[in-house]
Amino acid sequence: MTEQAASSPENLGRRVFNRRLFAGGAVVATGLTSMSVAGSASSASAELEVPTAPAGGTVRHMKLYVEALADGQLGYGLEKGKASIPGPLIEMIEGDTLHIEVINTLDIDVSLHPHGVDYEITSDGTRHNNSHVEPGGSRTYTWRTHVPGRRADGTWRAGSAGYWHYHDHVVGTDHGTGGLRKGLYGPLIVRRKGDILPDKTFTIVFNDMTINNLKTGPDLKATVGDRVEIVMITHGEFYHTFHMHGHRWADNRTGMLSGPEDPSPVIDNKITGPADSFGFQIIAGERVGAGAWMYHCHVQSHSDMGMAGFFLVAKPDGTIPGHDGGHTAHGAGSKESGDAKSTGDSKTSGGDAGAAHHH
Amino acid sequence: MTEQAASSPENLGRRVFNRRLFAGGAVVATGLTSMSVAGSASSASAELEVPTAPAGGTVRHMKLYVEALADGQLGYGLEKGKASIPGPLIEMIEGDTLHIEVINTLDIDVSLHPHGVDYEITSDGTRHNNSHVEPGGSRTYTWRTHVPGRRADGTWRAGSAGYWHYHDHVVGTDHGTGGLRKGLYGPLIVRRKGDILPDKTFTIVFNDMTINNLKTGPDLKATVGDRVEIVMITHGEFYHTFHMHGHRWADNRTGMLSGPEDPSPVIDNKITGPADSFGFQIIAGERVGAGAWMYHCHVQSHSDMGMAGFFLVAKPDGTIPGHDGGHTAHGAGSKESGDAKSTGDSKTSGGDAGAAHHH
Amino acid sequence: MTEQAASSPENLGRRVFNRRLFAGGAVVATGLTSMSVAGSASSASAELEVPTAPAGGTVRHMKLYVEALADGQLGYGLEKGKASIPGPLIEMIEGDTLHIEVINTLDIDVSLHPHGVDYEITSDGTRHNNSHVEPGGSRTYTWRTHVPGRRADGTWRAGSAGYWHYHDHVVGTDHGTGGLRKGLYGPLIVRRKGDILPDKTFTIVFNDMTINNLKTGPDLKATVGDRVEIVMITHGEFYHTFHMHGHRWADNRTGMLSGPEDPSPVIDNKITGPADSFGFQIIAGERVGAGAWMYHCHVQSHSDMGMAGFFLVAKPDGTIPGHDGGHTAHGAGSKESGDAKSTGDSKTSGGDAGAAHHH
Repeated sequence: MTEQAASSPENLGRRVFNRRLFAGGAVVATGLTSMSVAGSASSASAELEVPTAPAGGTVRHMKLYVEALADGQLGYGLEKGKASIPGPLIEMIEGDTLHIEVINTLDIDVSLHPHGVDYEITSDGTRHNNSHVEPGGSRTYTWRTHVPGRRADGTWRAGSAGYWHYHDHVVGTDHGTGGLRKGLYGPLIVRRKGDILPDKTFTIVFNDMTINNLKTGPDLKATVGDRVEIVMITHGEFYHTFHMHGHRWADNRTGMLSGPEDPSPVIDNKITGPADSFGFQIIAGERVGAGAWMYHCHVQSHSDMGMAGFFLVAKPDGTIPGHDGGHTAHGAGSKESGDAKSTGDSKTSGGDAGAAHHH
Repeated sequence: MTEQAASSPENLGRRVFNRRLFAGGAVVATGLTSMSVAGSASSASAELEVPTAPAGGTVRHMKLYVEALADGQLGYGLEKGKASIPGPLIEMIEGDTLHIEVINTLDIDVSLHPHGVDYEITSDGTRHNNSHVEPGGSRTYTWRTHVPGRRADGTWRAGSAGYWHYHDHVVGTDHGTGGLRKGLYGPLIVRRKGDILPDKTFTIVFNDMTINNLKTGPDLKATVGDRVEIVMITHGEFYHTFHMHGHRWADNRTGMLSGPEDPSPVIDNKITGPADSFGFQIIAGERVGAGAWMYHCHVQSHSDMGMAGFFLVAKPDGTIPGHDGGHTAHGAGSKESGDAKSTGDSKTSGGDAGAAHHH
Repeated sequence: MTEQAASSPENLGRRVFNRRLFAGGAVVATGLTSMSVAGSASSASAELEVPTAPAGGTVRHMKLYVEALADGQLGYGLEKGKASIPGPLIEMIEGDTLHIEVINTLDIDVSLHPHGVDYEITSDGTRHNNSHVEPGGSRTYTWRTHVPGRRADGTWRAGSAGYWHYHDHVVGTDHGTGGLRKGLYGPLIVRRKGDILPDKTFTIVFNDMTINNLKTGPDLKATVGDRVEIVMITHGEFYHTFHMHGHRWADNRTGMLSGPEDPSPVIDNKITGPADSFGFQIIAGERVGAGAWMYHCHVQSHSDMGMAGFFLVAKPDGTIPGHDGGHTAHGAGSKESGDAKSTGDSKTSGGDAGAAHHH
């Protein structure tokens, strides 16, 4: 890992997401490939015709504004006036460092606490360490990540890759209960060199009895064949079960089986509690076709009260069989739509990285 | 996978469950075997003297009746007048297709929604897709399954194998809350070619504060040495923890470690929430002997209120040490007994595949 | 496994925890090493410069006193007058046998029920099997463990290794609800030959709304670079999520990735319910440095009400940056401190094996 000149978020976005098609005879030495077929004769010639994450090691600087939103809600945003719930999707590659200047536009203390990444106690975002941001002030938090490898003593050190998240830790209580309730949370993905990159990423946060602080889940729009990534985070007070209709994922680091030796269960429903996070990639409509596929909390009273939305998988011509757009996933109430980010675009640069947005 | 002539459920049952003992020197090229010992010198000569699942690929047609039971409960049944709670155990092998004609004998809408298998949106069993069944009507749902393998782009596609389940999605609410409460749920197992077949399969459903809609758990009867399979499903409103005394399982796809490289935790207690499902195989009494082994929800108030039953493991002579049959697993109330299906019999054919039955 | 002369707990402690440094060129044939790099060219020469568990197979006898503590609480202790909450850490190596004489000093029935190990129904610790201990009486429970291996039929049998626990099953109700509430629980670790041994082990039990029956979590004290092991157990009525700041673990058997092929997720937050248990090892302050790192339940109301403590990681000079010792992890209430056991000492011998103690 060498310290490189800080790239702008826009450049980083493009660095990560250039599609890199691997030609026929090339040996792909990416992490996932070597993981999936280790020890197998077929592995050496595996070829992925999908883009994968390049090596990390860059150092970036970004700003994160904490702002008031409508109805007393709060959000993080990469630009002034662009705060959203969830906050922007932040992506790193193992080896990357991120310096995040948090600018507090509110009249109360706020903070930024990450899960998963390496940070010194001064970037903890907690009151007992005085690592919060005073009203009108700013503070730079530094997140580092590392690749897997062996320690000097021969033991194995896991890498930073994972589906993580960040949130406030001081609003309302010393555990950020008020900040979380009002919307101060967002997704954080750390990728490993060689990890398969998605076409689209959606963030779903079960926050108390809401999805992304909405009374009903946002529509997630895709076309049959899209490689769609879901980041699923839970916050607040309740346990939930996340269920998707017609699509499954592996209960492991990437949400995809690494190959035939991977013993991880394949599931379509998972219990989660506050601050749990996981992610996965699915091929929209694979072997099931287009449709308005529900996703919802499977705790019965929760789905009945609105914790449900649609994964809208369209045919290439844009139509969705049997879907006139007037239904809702829970039989009552209004629905809001959220667009995913295309990985062909920059990711960390925009303010609309979440699946649903409040402006 | 070739489309074969539809076999009757009875034939399928026998096809799957013929015991196939592998002779001494034979190389067993089944999926599970190759998984368990990949890359190991011992793998090529591994010999399983247990029956394993053959290749899938058949197409079957079956009927599923939705019927009223005593006390306002509802059930699915393979034959008229044979509805049970849980509904019948449905088994498939990766590659199989199942066409299920649901016959609604009730005066309300009902549906059939599966977890885990491949189905088009017209077989979703949800109201917004008009895939439910009107009073007195019938509708054919099609479930497909697939083997694992590589996609055209080189990435790995998981197979359909898993411990899944099916349930109503429209009675009471658009999420089937009323149907689930009354008993419209059942187990679905998709096996992989080479998966080890059990001697007996029991289904345990924690449905709100009941087990299989009973006030106390059914007895699960086995003899020391039986290979017993448990399918564990949760429904309703609450989270639970499933615990078995004296027996453990692996927290992976099959519930059995695939071999010495499998890092999955071995557990005897697992948190679950609504629509979660998992399964495992244990050797009854292995290293612990015969006995009345409790299984129960380990949430203390739940077990105290009756969410407990016995795994009754008898000696070959039929006796159970220290068990006079008069105890209950929770200290109060009555108990009902349920017989497991023997895998020597057909499985999908009978109406009594669940661990406990209401007629 | 041969029956050896019973060693005293003190001797066993030393047997297990002698640091065994493996010299440069030696081939380490321990389970973990072979697991982590199976099939890889690098595996044969892997060298661990950390102590690992030797082979098991010893038979030990120990006493466990059930005693009344202050405020109506109850505890298990290895010596008279030394009961603690949690009870003493009991460690075994696969192949070991433990005969535990439980001495009931109370005027009510008590029992000892273990998770994970092999025991006959007479050691179940339940009332329906008459395997409890009457007031003033004693009873010897026998726990056995086994190494992984193949059954006669060729299938794979998991070993006993795991992060387990023990508890009363008869006080208050037939599920021990009263005993658990009052403190009759403790940690049980079964190690595999070759498992890496920690420098310190702490036990954290989320028991209803307490941590180790304390109103706030105990301080866990370590120095940067210590290999710290956490055993995390849940009891009672509620679900929780266990979170550590600045440190992560693998969601598998050991809590450490077995190597680059291990697909287990790396997490820093995990949902748990009553009787769930897991464990992991972390290097204190690795890549994050010294600090007062919070650990807490991430259910917001639970942490706000006190389910939080500090993992106090000191610099080699003993200082902790930004920590004056006066803060609490939840902003109110008092705190109690608990010392971990050093693995250089005997482990099963003392009465203070838990992370926090009531005397």
